[in-house]
Amino acid sequence: MSSSVGIVTAQRATFDTPLTFKSGAVLPRYELMYETYGTLNADKSNAILICHALSGHHHVAGYYADDTKNIGWWDNMVGPGKPIDTLKFFVIGLNNLGGCHGSTGPSSIDPATGKPYGSSFPVITVEDWVNAQARLADQLGIQRFAAIVGGSLGGMQAMQWALAYPDRVAHVLAIATAPHLTAQNIAFNDVARSAILTDPEFHGGDFYQHGVVPTRGLRLARMLGHITYLSDDAMADKFGRELRHGKLNFSYDIEFQIESYLRYQGDKFAAYFDANTYLLMTKALDYFDPARELDGDLNRAFAAAKAKFLVVSFTTDWRFSPARSHEIVHALLHNRRDVSYAEVTSDHGHDSFLMEDAQYIAVMRNYLNNVFEEVSA
Amino acid sequence: MSSSVGIVTAQRATFDTPLTFKSGAVLPRYELMYETYGTLNADKSNAILICHALSGHHHVAGYYADDTKNIGWWDNMVGPGKPIDTLKFFVIGLNNLGGCHGSTGPSSIDPATGKPYGSSFPVITVEDWVNAQARLADQLGIQRFAAIVGGSLGGMQAMQWALAYPDRVAHVLAIATAPHLTAQNIAFNDVARSAILTDPEFHGGDFYQHGVVPTRGLRLARMLGHITYLSDDAMADKFGRELRHGKLNFSYDIEFQIESYLRYQGDKFAAYFDANTYLLMTKALDYFDPARELDGDLNRAFAAAKAKFLVVSFTTDWRFSPARSHEIVHALLHNRRDVSYAEVTSDHGHDSFLMEDAQYIAVMRNYLNNVFEEVSA
Repeated sequence: MSSSVGIVTAQRATFDTPLTFKSGAVLPRYELMYETYGTLNADKSNAILICHALSGHHHVAGYYADDTKNIGWWDNMVGPGKPIDTLKFFVIGLNNLGGCHGSTGPSSIDPATGKPYGSSFPVITVEDWVNAQARLADQLGIQRFAAIVGGSLGGMQAMQWALAYPDRVAHVLAIATAPHLTAQNIAFNDVARSAILTDPEFHGGDFYQHGVVPTRGLRLARMLGHITYLSDDAMADKFGRELRHGKLNFSYDIEFQIESYLRYQGDKFAAYFDANTYLLMTKALDYFDPARELDGDLNRAFAAAKAKFLVVSFTTDWRFSPARSHEIVHALLHNRRDVSYAEVTSDHGHDSFLMEDAQYIAVMRNYLNNVFEEVSA
Repeated sequence: MSSSVGIVTAQRATFDTPLTFKSGAVLPRYELMYETYGTLNADKSNAILICHALSGHHHVAGYYADDTKNIGWWDNMVGPGKPIDTLKFFVIGLNNLGGCHGSTGPSSIDPATGKPYGSSFPVITVEDWVNAQARLADQLGIQRFAAIVGGSLGGMQAMQWALAYPDRVAHVLAIATAPHLTAQNIAFNDVARSAILTDPEFHGGDFYQHGVVPTRGLRLARMLGHITYLSDDAMADKFGRELRHGKLNFSYDIEFQIESYLRYQGDKFAAYFDANTYLLMTKALDYFDPARELDGDLNRAFAAAKAKFLVVSFTTDWRFSPARSHEIVHALLHNRRDVSYAEVTSDHGHDSFLMEDAQYIAVMRNYLNNVFEEVSA
């Protein structure tokens, strides 16, 4: 029997020690929004960190007292009796640095200028995020995570934990992810970024002072993103060639249902998401490549990892295909690491990692049951 | 031994009989730019029509006396001794109605107003194009084509010829095409169109009067298009994760070579192509669906066809995958039509249909040799 974690409260952690980014930029001070669910045990060994993907945030599960319809983005996975069981684990969700959900990001006020950071916010990497997350763990007194879990860009963070802090994570759950983006992945990101960068209302990233928002660019970026999140088959099943108004209108208004869906998703996203954060997130995706400085040798990159891994992919995910997960698995096996791999049959493309799929849920539940047995041993 | 058709001259055909579009709109008068190569035989039985794809035009082969570097877009396929052999066939290339290479289109002056048609140019369909092409054939005295050939959107026109004018085409060569777009195909088109439609310099399609061009939107549309023309593998082989400047720059300038390529392609295209034509072409793609009014039954749609078919697909074409060609082949076989099918192993994705691939060239050559034997019999 599973239920919701119920009412949750977001918290804010402040960090006054400067953080040096991979780029060399330094942020003197920053804040991270986070939420926790469940109870940290006496020896602080039952903590799970959830790393979010492109448009995610700290609100992973439950709802707010004053906004009960605002349910966490992974509420089907995290809660009492759910695979990431809050009766067993102390679960942390955070909004990454550079985000637009309360953590310090481009839309935050830079104390040095009294204006939003905008274009002056440093380009961030997965490595930088993980360093910031490690400091949050320090504040919470968590020396070592029972597990770090993430899908897509979140999976990259989970992997990076194993590489950068091998003694601080027992298990990595890397879902629907890849050891680096392909040229095609980067190409999609570049089109999305170009849509934002060339929007006249972007103003080089400093649109806040102009009282405008590059809505057009952000909307296009999100529309394009959605195509890559869904499988060709899922789109065909869900929308096919169904017309919005039952007949052809021979105009540039919405003609097919798929257009209606995409434009709705684009409009919804552009109304709340920060354009600079979107740019940062896609850049972090592009840059992640632990093998870059090792002649592209992923085996060498994963030599540093000590964690046990669960790698999960989805058959119709063409953004991060199963073949990309195989690369991770092979590199881990090469290093004789303990790795489980599940290739889940799902119609939902990359979005599958957020979906309620029985096989996927069972894989996660079983793996995390074993993690808990280790913690309890 | 094969060579170029050499110096060619574009011609202009004028049509003073009003053309009624599928939408119900009427164009009172229009012009079509075309080129011909080779010689029409005495009984006018050796004519081949080349239908162009999204950004194509009438300049299929050869070059111009005053612009010798401007070589036709299918010069590797059309010429003396080439698969579409101009020593044997009389070959016609035209710029479709609505185009931006000399045929009447949105950027042409509407005689009724003295201004460019712009937003008043009718939304056009593959059926409309084929009707306009049939009138061009009438003017040239060609009752029946030996073959009609097209790739991608051009393949849709070639198929439509067999359905609308079954007695006027002996052979259809439908290459890298589909019986209709999928939801995913439409989705990509919709993002491309949205980029143009929301460009502040589009001015609802009447940007000509404002002395501006929606370059930003057109550039994004083309960048996105290019991703879908290439295969994931081809992009990986050609660009991989290679950096433009050898090291990461942590900025939104070009970082990876793939970004450089895409932006270059986008800029080049936006400098010459008409935004309204781009919109029309993508709409024609979306709308083509000969089975729409037959409960989606492609078998019934192809019952009208009398032509013999060559259907060609390419293994890495994910925009119009081999599975889409199979649908065409199955519908033809269901109707006991004469159909040859070739699935060419190629790394170049959808773009393969424009490439010099030995297997592809051989298939085309052999098929057209047989067509010529029929013509000569």
